[in-house]
Amino acid sequence: MKIGFVGLGNMGFAMASSLIRNGQTLIVHNRTRDKARPLVELGALVVDSPAQATEGVDAVVTMLPDDAALEQVTLGEDGILAALGPDAVHVSSSTISPRLSQRLGRLHTENGRAFVAAPVLGRPEAAAQGRLVVVAAGPARAVERCRPIFDAIGSVTHVVGEHPPRANAVKLAVNFVLASLLATLGEAYALVEEYGMDDRAFLEILNGSLLKSPIVEAYGAKIADGSFDSNGFRLELGAKDVRLAVEAAEAHTVPMPIASVLRESFVAAMAAGEQDVDWSAIGRVNTRRAS
Amino acid sequence: MKIGFVGLGNMGFAMASSLIRNGQTLIVHNRTRDKARPLVELGALVVDSPAQATEGVDAVVTMLPDDAALEQVTLGEDGILAALGPDAVHVSSSTISPRLSQRLGRLHTENGRAFVAAPVLGRPEAAAQGRLVVVAAGPARAVERCRPIFDAIGSVTHVVGEHPPRANAVKLAVNFVLASLLATLGEAYALVEEYGMDDRAFLEILNGSLLKSPIVEAYGAKIADGSFDSNGFRLELGAKDVRLAVEAAEAHTVPMPIASVLRESFVAAMAAGEQDVDWSAIGRVNTRRAS
Amino acid sequence: MKIGFVGLGNMGFAMASSLIRNGQTLIVHNRTRDKARPLVELGALVVDSPAQATEGVDAVVTMLPDDAALEQVTLGEDGILAALGPDAVHVSSSTISPRLSQRLGRLHTENGRAFVAAPVLGRPEAAAQGRLVVVAAGPARAVERCRPIFDAIGSVTHVVGEHPPRANAVKLAVNFVLASLLATLGEAYALVEEYGMDDRAFLEILNGSLLKSPIVEAYGAKIADGSFDSNGFRLELGAKDVRLAVEAAEAHTVPMPIASVLRESFVAAMAAGEQDVDWSAIGRVNTRRAS
Amino acid sequence: MKIGFVGLGNMGFAMASSLIRNGQTLIVHNRTRDKARPLVELGALVVDSPAQATEGVDAVVTMLPDDAALEQVTLGEDGILAALGPDAVHVSSSTISPRLSQRLGRLHTENGRAFVAAPVLGRPEAAAQGRLVVVAAGPARAVERCRPIFDAIGSVTHVVGEHPPRANAVKLAVNFVLASLLATLGEAYALVEEYGMDDRAFLEILNGSLLKSPIVEAYGAKIADGSFDSNGFRLELGAKDVRLAVEAAEAHTVPMPIASVLRESFVAAMAAGEQDVDWSAIGRVNTRRAS
Repeated sequence: MKIGFVGLGNMGFAMASSLIRNGQTLIVHNRTRDKARPLVELGALVVDSPAQATEGVDAVVTMLPDDAALEQVTLGEDGILAALGPDAVHVSSSTISPRLSQRLGRLHTENGRAFVAAPVLGRPEAAAQGRLVVVAAGPARAVERCRPIFDAIGSVTHVVGEHPPRANAVKLAVNFVLASLLATLGEAYALVEEYGMDDRAFLEILNGSLLKSPIVEAYGAKIADGSFDSNGFRLELGAKDVRLAVEAAEAHTVPMPIASVLRESFVAAMAAGEQDVDWSAIGRVNTRRAS
Repeated sequence: MKIGFVGLGNMGFAMASSLIRNGQTLIVHNRTRDKARPLVELGALVVDSPAQATEGVDAVVTMLPDDAALEQVTLGEDGILAALGPDAVHVSSSTISPRLSQRLGRLHTENGRAFVAAPVLGRPEAAAQGRLVVVAAGPARAVERCRPIFDAIGSVTHVVGEHPPRANAVKLAVNFVLASLLATLGEAYALVEEYGMDDRAFLEILNGSLLKSPIVEAYGAKIADGSFDSNGFRLELGAKDVRLAVEAAEAHTVPMPIASVLRESFVAAMAAGEQDVDWSAIGRVNTRRAS
Repeated sequence: MKIGFVGLGNMGFAMASSLIRNGQTLIVHNRTRDKARPLVELGALVVDSPAQATEGVDAVVTMLPDDAALEQVTLGEDGILAALGPDAVHVSSSTISPRLSQRLGRLHTENGRAFVAAPVLGRPEAAAQGRLVVVAAGPARAVERCRPIFDAIGSVTHVVGEHPPRANAVKLAVNFVLASLLATLGEAYALVEEYGMDDRAFLEILNGSLLKSPIVEAYGAKIADGSFDSNGFRLELGAKDVRLAVEAAEAHTVPMPIASVLRESFVAAMAAGEQDVDWSAIGRVNTRRAS
Repeated sequence: MKIGFVGLGNMGFAMASSLIRNGQTLIVHNRTRDKARPLVELGALVVDSPAQATEGVDAVVTMLPDDAALEQVTLGEDGILAALGPDAVHVSSSTISPRLSQRLGRLHTENGRAFVAAPVLGRPEAAAQGRLVVVAAGPARAVERCRPIFDAIGSVTHVVGEHPPRANAVKLAVNFVLASLLATLGEAYALVEEYGMDDRAFLEILNGSLLKSPIVEAYGAKIADGSFDSNGFRLELGAKDVRLAVEAAEAHTVPMPIASVLRESFVAAMAAGEQDVDWSAIGRVNTRRAS
C-alpha cells in the first residue's frame, strides 16, 4: 500500500517504522521535519504538508496529540480533507474527542471519502514491534481496505462498527479505567502504609492471588517504587484522556463521579508541575500531601 | 487441634465445615442455634455462649459481621477475653476496623493471651473448599500455632507481621480496590453505551488484551448483564468495608478521594434499597440514574 | 445612543426593553423574529442579521445562550466583527467562557475595534427594571462610552479592568458560589430531616441568626418547599456555568473539587430530565434518591 | 440557679463566665484545674470530679471537645449519670454526634433524669458577652427549667423539639453549611485570581450586591488575606463537625457528596499540619497546591 503518515511523535514515529518494516510505502509529514529523518533512512519520503502526504495514497494515517492538531491538519490550509483521493481512507489513530471524530466522519462522507477512527492501545515500544491493540470503527469496506495497516502496527484489531466516534469512546473508556486503577492503587498503598505495610507486599497479595493482571503488576510496582521516569505515557496525556471522557459523558448526561474526581487529581498533579512524568504518578498526587 | 468457632454466617459456616473436614475438633457457637445444626451432623459440638466455645480450646476463631458483634462476643458477658486459656489464641477473621483489632490485641496481651487478626479473601464457596486467601498478623509464635487453621481454610497465607491491625488494613484496602474497579467499570460501560457499544464487547477489549484479570472478567460480566443476584457478597457489606477504609484513612489523615466518592455511591445504593444485592451493583448506581 | 441588540431571550428581551425605556435608539435582531415584535411597538427597529444590527451603531450588545451562538453571531456570515464601525463597541453580556471572550477581544483589537465583556448578575425581572449588577471589563475608553448602556440596565456597575475574560471569570465564579450554596443547603436539609427537623425551621436558624442573606432566604425557601417552577434561572443554564467554571479552572490547572462534584450533580439532574426547572432543584438531586 | 459546669475550654470558660456574671451560682470542674482559677475569683467553686459538679445542682452543663470526652464525663467513674439529682437536668452544649446524644438521653431517661441537648452557635467572644445562639432539644419541662441558662449565654434560643439528637444534627448541619461556604469561596477566589482579579474586589461583587451576609464578609476577608491566626475556630474542630455530619448522614443513608468532598479537604489540611489554624484555611487547602 501507499500510505501517508502525519504526526511523528513517539507513537506516530514507532507506528510509521512498523509500517515501513512491514513493506509499505510511506510518505510522511511532521510539523518539525527533523523527527522524520530516521524514517528517510528506512525508505520513507518526507513532504512539507498534510496535503502532500495525502495526494495519491491509498490511506493517510494521522497520529496527533489533540483535537486542535487533528482539526488543523485535516481542515486547515493544505489539509487532508481536500487532498484525499476518491478511494482513499483517512485513518485517525489519535486519541481525540468522539465529537471531533463524528464531525470529521461527516465531512469526509459529504466529500465522498471515507474516515476510519482507529485509536490504538499500547506504548511506543509495542507500536515499534507491531503489537498494539487497534480499535477501529468506520465504513466496513474502508475498514477492510485498511487491514494491512492494522496488521502491521497491531497484534489484535477490534472492529467495533461503522460509527467512528464509538472507537474513540472505547479508547477513552479504557484509559479512564487504567487511570482509575492507578489512583486507586495509590490510595490503597497510602492506607496500608499507615499500618507499616510494605507496598510491594500488599501488591503481591492483591495481584498475586486476586487480580492476577500483568498490567496491575507493572503499574503497581512503579507506584510502589515511585519511579515515574518520563519515557512512559506522559501524565499530561492521561489528564487529557480523562478530561475527554468526562466531557463526552457530560455531553450525553452520563454521571461519572469517579472520573470527575480523577480529573481533579490530574489537575492537582499538573498544578504540582508533573505534566511530563509517567501518568502512574497520579497514584501519589493526593497521598503525597500526607507526608 | 481443638478449635472454638463463633459466628456461623455464610462465611463462618463454610470455614467451620472446612476445619471439620480437615480433621479438627470443633466447638461452635452462633447467636441463633439453628444455623449450627448441619455442623453437628459433621461432628461439631454446639454450645450456648462464646465463653463455652473458648474454654479448653487451642484457638477460638471469630467470624462476625461487624465491630459491634465482635466487641460483644469478646468483651461482653460470657465473652472470649475472660475465658481464653493461657496458651490459647483468639483468631479474628472478621472484617473489622484496624482500631478494634488494635484494642483487642492490647486487651488480650494485658491478659497474657494472644490475639491474631486473620481476615480472609474469597467467597463462601472458596471457604468451603479450603481455598481462601488468609492475611494474618499477630505474635509470631501464635501465628505459627494457628497454621493448621489457615491451611484448612485457605490455599495461601500471607503473614504480614506481628501487628494485628495491619492485616485488617490490608483486607480493607483490597476490598476498596475491588469496589473501585466495580464502580469504574460501571462508569466506563455507561460512557461507551452512549456510543452504541456493547458492554461485553468493551470488556473483551479491556480485559482480553490489557488487564487480563479473571476477577475483572467475572465482575465485568455481572455488571454488563445486570445480574446482581444476592448469593454473592452483599452490597451492604461492601459499603461497610469502604466506610471502614475511609474512617481508618481519616484517623491517620490520609486523603482517599476515590474511596470517599465510592462511599457516597454505596450510600446512594443503600438509599435505593440495594443492601442485599451483589456488591457489583455499585457499578450501576450512578449511571442507572441516566435512564 | 444608537444601539444594536442581538439575542432576545428572556434576559436579552428585558435588557433591550430597559434600554428603550431609557431613551436609547434600538436596532434589534433575533434568530426567530417573532420575539422582537413587542419591542417594535416600543419603537425598536427589527433587522434580519447581526451585521444589520451592527452597521452604524455606537455599540452592539449581544446576549446569547452560549459560546457557539456568540461565535456564530460575531464571526459567522453577516456577523458583527466585519460590520462594526471604527468607533463602535461590541458589548458581550452573555455568560460565556473566558477563552472565547479573550479570543473575540483579540480579533476585534486586530480589527481596530473595541470589545467589552459585560456579563450581568440578576434575573429578567431585574433586567426589565434596570436593576442588574453589571461586571464590565475592556479598554477603559470603550467601557466609558458604554456607561449609558450599563446605567440603563443595571443599578451597579463593577469595572474590573481592561482584560475582558476577567469579567467572564467573575460571572462564572459568582454563579458557582450560588450553585454550591443551593446544593449545600439541600444536603443540610436532607441531614436534619432525618432527625425530624423542618427545613424552614432550620433555615430560620441558619439564615435568621447567622448568614442573614436575602438570597439564601429566597432560595432556601424554594428548596424547602420543592417549588422549582421554571420561570427562574433554568437548571440547564446553571449546569453550563458550572461546567464553564470547571473548564476554565482546568485550563489554568486550578483544582476546584467542590465545583467538580457540583458538575456531576448537574449532570445527574439533567439525566433525570430536569433541564427546564429552576436551578435551585440542584439542592434536591442527590438527596431525592434517599426517599 | 445552682449550676454545675464541666469543661472549661475556650467556649466553656466563656459560657461559665457569662453564667456567673448573670448571677448564677457555679460549681465548675475541668480536667486540668488551672483553667478554672480565674472563675474562682469571680466566685465559682472548683471541684475535683464531674460527680462533685453534679451533686445538689439544678442543672449541670457540659462543654467538651468530643464524644469520647462527654462519654467519659457522663458514664465514667465519678460521672454525671449516677450523681444527677431527681429534678436536675444534664445540659449538653458540646458538638457531638446525634447518636451519642440519643444514647445519653435514653440513659438519663431510664434513670428518671432529664437530658437536654443545647449546642451553641458562635465564638468564645459571643459566649463571654452572652450573645450565642442556642439550639435546644429535650423534654419540654426540662428545657423550660434551663431557660435562665440559655438566656445568660445566648441572645436567641431555638427550641427544636423534645428529641435531643435533633439539636445536635442542626448544629452539625449549620457548621457544614459554613464549612462549605469557606471552601467554595476559596475555589472561587482561585479561579478569578487566574484572570488577575483581586479576591477582595471579587468578594465586594459577590457579597456587596448579592449575598449581603456579614459572616460571608468576615470569612471572605480572612480567606482573601490568608490570615488564619488560631484564636478563632480551630480547623481540627471544623474537621470533626464535617466528619460527624457525614457519619450521621451515612447512618441514615443520606448522600451528602459536597460534605464528603469537604471531609477529604479537611483531611488534606490536617495532613498538611493545619490542625490549629482558623478553619477558614479550608478555603485554601486545595488551591494552595496550585502554586
